[in-house]
Amino acid sequence: MKESGIGSQKIIRRRRDGELEYSPDELTIEEPLEIRVGRKPLATTMRTPGHDEELAAGFLLSEGIVRDRHAIASVSMGGNNRVVVELTCGVKLRLNSTKRVGTISSSCGLCGKTSIDAIRQNFPAVRSTDVRIDIETLLLLPETLRNAQSDFARTGGIHAAGIFGVDGKLKIAREDIGRHNAVDKAVGRAFLDELLPLQRHLLVVSGRASFEIIQKALAAGIPIVAAVSAPSSLAVELARDNNQTLIGFLRPPSFNIYTHVERVIFA
Amino acid sequence: MKESGIGSQKIIRRRRDGELEYSPDELTIEEPLEIRVGRKPLATTMRTPGHDEELAAGFLLSEGIVRDRHAIASVSMGGNNRVVVELTCGVKLRLNSTKRVGTISSSCGLCGKTSIDAIRQNFPAVRSTDVRIDIETLLLLPETLRNAQSDFARTGGIHAAGIFGVDGKLKIAREDIGRHNAVDKAVGRAFLDELLPLQRHLLVVSGRASFEIIQKALAAGIPIVAAVSAPSSLAVELARDNNQTLIGFLRPPSFNIYTHVERVIFA
Repeated sequence: MKESGIGSQKIIRRRRDGELEYSPDELTIEEPLEIRVGRKPLATTMRTPGHDEELAAGFLLSEGIVRDRHAIASVSMGGNNRVVVELTCGVKLRLNSTKRVGTISSSCGLCGKTSIDAIRQNFPAVRSTDVRIDIETLLLLPETLRNAQSDFARTGGIHAAGIFGVDGKLKIAREDIGRHNAVDKAVGRAFLDELLPLQRHLLVVSGRASFEIIQKALAAGIPIVAAVSAPSSLAVELARDNNQTLIGFLRPPSFNIYTHVERVIFA
Repeated sequence: MKESGIGSQKIIRRRRDGELEYSPDELTIEEPLEIRVGRKPLATTMRTPGHDEELAAGFLLSEGIVRDRHAIASVSMGGNNRVVVELTCGVKLRLNSTKRVGTISSSCGLCGKTSIDAIRQNFPAVRSTDVRIDIETLLLLPETLRNAQSDFARTGGIHAAGIFGVDGKLKIAREDIGRHNAVDKAVGRAFLDELLPLQRHLLVVSGRASFEIIQKALAAGIPIVAAVSAPSSLAVELARDNNQTLIGFLRPPSFNIYTHVERVIFA
């Protein structure tokens, strides 16, 4: 993940001592990516280039468009800012969960779905198993995720998402200017590697936990989600309904547990 | 803006001293809002309830769907999570900038636009005028915006957007769980009040400045955008091309100027 998705230019900086300097600066790259299924343009996202195939796979999964790894024949770049997913012969696009009305929407915060019902996918709840994590392991995760990021990313320009085993081992870490994209890339990698459902894993995100973050974890069968910042009301509701443990404000030595505390071992 | 959009529930909290407590906690409310133009559902956003009419107006403006205040006859709530915009008799929806292909998209980070070209609207560049801001005024803006937020919001659960005069006076402040929504609400208020173009104003955002934030400011004719966190590469490019001053990492006493430094007075 080192130094990918970063550009540079010269800027004017006012330092803490009030002095001005004209110096090089790093910027998170943001570019549009068009996701196609075959010849059909499905969506465009503003993302940080890199791991675009994973982003597309994770997006299709968390939108309920594909649920089985074998439904995807291939994912490849079809140009600079275009990724093309080819479905396996005979597999049809599952668009039934979304009304197909022409839409206008923003790349962030506003979606093309034209009905409130269409936002919630029907993923099965996480199964109750003996998966648990102890506090000491949990408290190490944010630093492990940060250490997998570049120096620049740690300054706040890029969001990170990490998939960890409940033993605290980092399995996949991805970065993006968009929180959701970082999760799609991480989950997409696991999906392409046929690792789903991720029953013995956690998802850790460097920012807030909104509804969609929880839903993406649910799509991957992840039982525990931990966010460095705040969860939203709907995120808490979705996690509670689907048997997911939701931890917020994970800032060692503190954290909050919002749902399904039974998966945390207080030794 | 005090205490709106906040819910509460009981959580388990690990305190800094390692002790656990079961106590009430506040959560940012996140709920879907469907935006309709007449009977036509246009988009659904995940937002923090409140100022929904402004959100709809700001969204229509920054998507290039309406450009003239008089094109809107009324904006009103058509149910709990639905806002309905009625266009003035004779005004037609301007959907030409967006291909109307059926789309699937996420509520954040992925949009319903099915072509990369469709992301960039054709707003005119900001006009060159004598508008400038001095450093001392600029350095006061983040605190003024924070003071307009609730205690809870300051902890990081909600994004804020403020429209300031170049004299440092706060004109409009809005909050939302989504960065873009907070800007749409602030700009939408100004649009509904027929204050556009906001030539002698700044937009200040509590988080990062992505492409869409700059584009929304451009739609409102705002010449200066200041963000508390990092801008993206595309945000810098758009601001440079459209004669906008872009300031990032505005964390007194420091800040960075990325574009059009001529509007900042270094006294």
